[in-house]
Amino acid sequence: MSADQAATLFRSGMTVGMSGFTKAGDCKALPEALAQRAREDGLRLNVVTGASLGNDNDGMMAQAGLLARRMPFQADAVLRKEINDGRVMFLDQHLSETVEQLRCGSLPAIDVAVVEAVAIREDGSIVPTTSVGNTASFVQQANTVIVELNLAMPLALEGLHDIYLPEDRPQRRPIPLTSVSQRIGSSAIKVDPKRIAAIVVTNTDDSPSANLPPDEDTRAIARHVVDFFSDEVAAGRMTPSLLPLQAGIGTIANAVLHGLLESSFSGMTMYSEVLQDSSFELLDSGQFTFASASSITLSAEMNRKFLNNVERYASRLVLRPQEISNHPEIVRRLGIIGINTALEFDIYGNVNSTHVGGTHMMNGIGGSGDFARNAHLSIFVTKSVAKGGAISSIVPMVTHVDHTEHDVDVVATEWGLADLRGLAPRERAALIIERCVHPEYRDMMRSYYRRACAAGGHTPHLLAEAFEWHQRYAATGSMHERVPESV
Amino acid sequence: MSADQAATLFRSGMTVGMSGFTKAGDCKALPEALAQRAREDGLRLNVVTGASLGNDNDGMMAQAGLLARRMPFQADAVLRKEINDGRVMFLDQHLSETVEQLRCGSLPAIDVAVVEAVAIREDGSIVPTTSVGNTASFVQQANTVIVELNLAMPLALEGLHDIYLPEDRPQRRPIPLTSVSQRIGSSAIKVDPKRIAAIVVTNTDDSPSANLPPDEDTRAIARHVVDFFSDEVAAGRMTPSLLPLQAGIGTIANAVLHGLLESSFSGMTMYSEVLQDSSFELLDSGQFTFASASSITLSAEMNRKFLNNVERYASRLVLRPQEISNHPEIVRRLGIIGINTALEFDIYGNVNSTHVGGTHMMNGIGGSGDFARNAHLSIFVTKSVAKGGAISSIVPMVTHVDHTEHDVDVVATEWGLADLRGLAPRERAALIIERCVHPEYRDMMRSYYRRACAAGGHTPHLLAEAFEWHQRYAATGSMHERVPESV
Repeated sequence: MSADQAATLFRSGMTVGMSGFTKAGDCKALPEALAQRAREDGLRLNVVTGASLGNDNDGMMAQAGLLARRMPFQADAVLRKEINDGRVMFLDQHLSETVEQLRCGSLPAIDVAVVEAVAIREDGSIVPTTSVGNTASFVQQANTVIVELNLAMPLALEGLHDIYLPEDRPQRRPIPLTSVSQRIGSSAIKVDPKRIAAIVVTNTDDSPSANLPPDEDTRAIARHVVDFFSDEVAAGRMTPSLLPLQAGIGTIANAVLHGLLESSFSGMTMYSEVLQDSSFELLDSGQFTFASASSITLSAEMNRKFLNNVERYASRLVLRPQEISNHPEIVRRLGIIGINTALEFDIYGNVNSTHVGGTHMMNGIGGSGDFARNAHLSIFVTKSVAKGGAISSIVPMVTHVDHTEHDVDVVATEWGLADLRGLAPRERAALIIERCVHPEYRDMMRSYYRRACAAGGHTPHLLAEAFEWHQRYAATGSMHERVPESV
Repeated sequence: MSADQAATLFRSGMTVGMSGFTKAGDCKALPEALAQRAREDGLRLNVVTGASLGNDNDGMMAQAGLLARRMPFQADAVLRKEINDGRVMFLDQHLSETVEQLRCGSLPAIDVAVVEAVAIREDGSIVPTTSVGNTASFVQQANTVIVELNLAMPLALEGLHDIYLPEDRPQRRPIPLTSVSQRIGSSAIKVDPKRIAAIVVTNTDDSPSANLPPDEDTRAIARHVVDFFSDEVAAGRMTPSLLPLQAGIGTIANAVLHGLLESSFSGMTMYSEVLQDSSFELLDSGQFTFASASSITLSAEMNRKFLNNVERYASRLVLRPQEISNHPEIVRRLGIIGINTALEFDIYGNVNSTHVGGTHMMNGIGGSGDFARNAHLSIFVTKSVAKGGAISSIVPMVTHVDHTEHDVDVVATEWGLADLRGLAPRERAALIIERCVHPEYRDMMRSYYRRACAAGGHTPHLLAEAFEWHQRYAATGSMHERVPESV
């Protein structure tokens, strides 16, 4: 049926599970049809996805007033404003946990699942497109399933997916995955065809990635991380194939992986939530032997290349539910190296991934916590300054904590890398200040830390000054005591 | 040999792994002999344990200047001061992670393991006493093993332990544990007898628990939690046997379990890191059918009763390595209900478990993060005020974050319980203020929150005022704007 017809199946107050993870595999028609209903008759829904949607779907649905609640991640400027103004209730969640909470009733049940597919098999089972996300669990749990069949996606995608869902507690067995390339499930999502209430045909590409190309600073960050890996190999703590790599969505983490292209490491694998351009470059170079994720989010050019050559990559790729790609059980078992981007971090290694100025949501924590907590190495990267030097990304105290110092092993900026393993807070602070803080801010930070130490404590701070840099930025447009000259 | 002779095996700079977890099963002789060497010839060691030690060992070693570094947990007033003055470098760690980091070389290797035992078998394998903690991994990794054979411990303890260690990554298999009572390992710690360099005989009890008996406030907290469980059962989200329970060390979490004695729940189990008096009362009442932990820490009276009647409990108890009792893989698989104590929490549900005033270490995060992150229900409890009302345990913003709002499902004080599941930050704040904040502080908190909302954001805050309550306490001795009359 048409998207408009399918949209009549919804009632206000329903919870809707939509496919889509970091712009990949989202529905292309229903979001607009539902937004139209919101504009016409005030439809309000709770929308749960894998992660962020593409095609401006999140902004368009928010602008129409469709969204009462939204979880577990978003990355849209319009929706962001609605969230920060308190008009959309946003739940910022660890991406492995949403369906666990749905399964045990800690979150309201999914009424309708709306999922993109490249095919529906004769038994009704659904073959996803460029992401799995939470789609399999939505389909399993929903009363009603609506499928968007996207003709723009090549049928060669069939076979790429590995659908495995953990059993209900408390009788759950171990997840049998013990290697990156292992398949433990089925290649499509099983569903009783009777529950498929509508099939809507579309013909639209995923939105392209918005990653910026590497620049001088991100190349320097990548160099520090690659050098650190080399030191770990030299010390006998890793082999030259390293351990399975995870990299967060975005320009900087993508640039760090890009930096591996110029390294001598080979036989590497990826066990991540999203594959970006750099992952395919490393598959092309032969340095990656296998890549496992929950979604594929590429530039327009790389996406065309991938979709035209799926067969060439199929034996070295798998897409899993995000519960499995991000599962703490698997992350700990495999010994992942997690590389994620910090919005800001502090002198003790606490990381803010989400809240600008401690109050305003940027995107969400995403999967960074799933990986950082249980990783073999948990690495956070950021440029040392933002807004032309007006903001220092390293601050005395972060205004919001997403990752505590317990979960952060290594931090790096373009100035250097601080290996925090085995260090007490005062040792961490000394290293972070000298290695990672921009030279223009180093004296200010040394002064803060010196005076905090005089006041004492395991983790010295001056509460009256802890957020002074942020307050100065809000008041003057710069965190710096004086306008920096040479940043 | 004597403890003094065994102490000659140590050199400054060594890393020593000692048995002991929340005062249970610590070594009784070597700590004093090593402290004596520190006093005589300046011996300095890095000491790694399971958790806190009893018998004033931590304070005594700290006072002697023996401790250069200490991890992953402590609870001693003397050592606490050394840490906060910056003289002992303390690493505050998730208790499941220490041996993982040792195993992969992220922490310096253990040179000597010093472990308490109730027996050494003919093949050299070591039978621990009242805790397993990290002992098995220390013994596995150390060059040299020193055993303290404690004659005060009954031989009936043999058979209580289940020693299983995960394999090295990246070829690790799933941990096969799928139920609370399952045994997956051996009953003693295997070791080549050639590596046992000394056996020292002792005859000293564990230190008793310092838990206070339930009072009016802790009974009220327990009542709120038990009522919440009843509601969950009524809603069909749990059966009357609930799910495996974890409770942190200390008076309040112990009191909450105590409150279950008066409930109608039965067939319950415990999967925790420590068993306290309340666990044995629930075993005695028959409401607990099985209890799994890493240590047993009891009052003197309950300890005597247990040690004289080990046989009576043996079929319903198991002690595991803390890596297994606290393992994220198992916590997530079993669907644990985690009950832990907060030092303070804020209006959004972020929890500070460790740092007084954001700077001074109390004890450490312990296992609370291992459980809270992956629990089916993550519950934090605290009295709403401390120091006769001069401190509100609920604050606008916590001065240190150990558990982020992503990992906290429920908070409770004697005034009430806030079920935060599925709520956005602004909804969380409204509920926490009305349910959990002491009435004397409620107007102050409403004012802060109202003015923060006017400034906007997903998580509204006023950075200039966020720590004002803590600063007022430091300046005036009370967080309150006026001295409260009726608290």
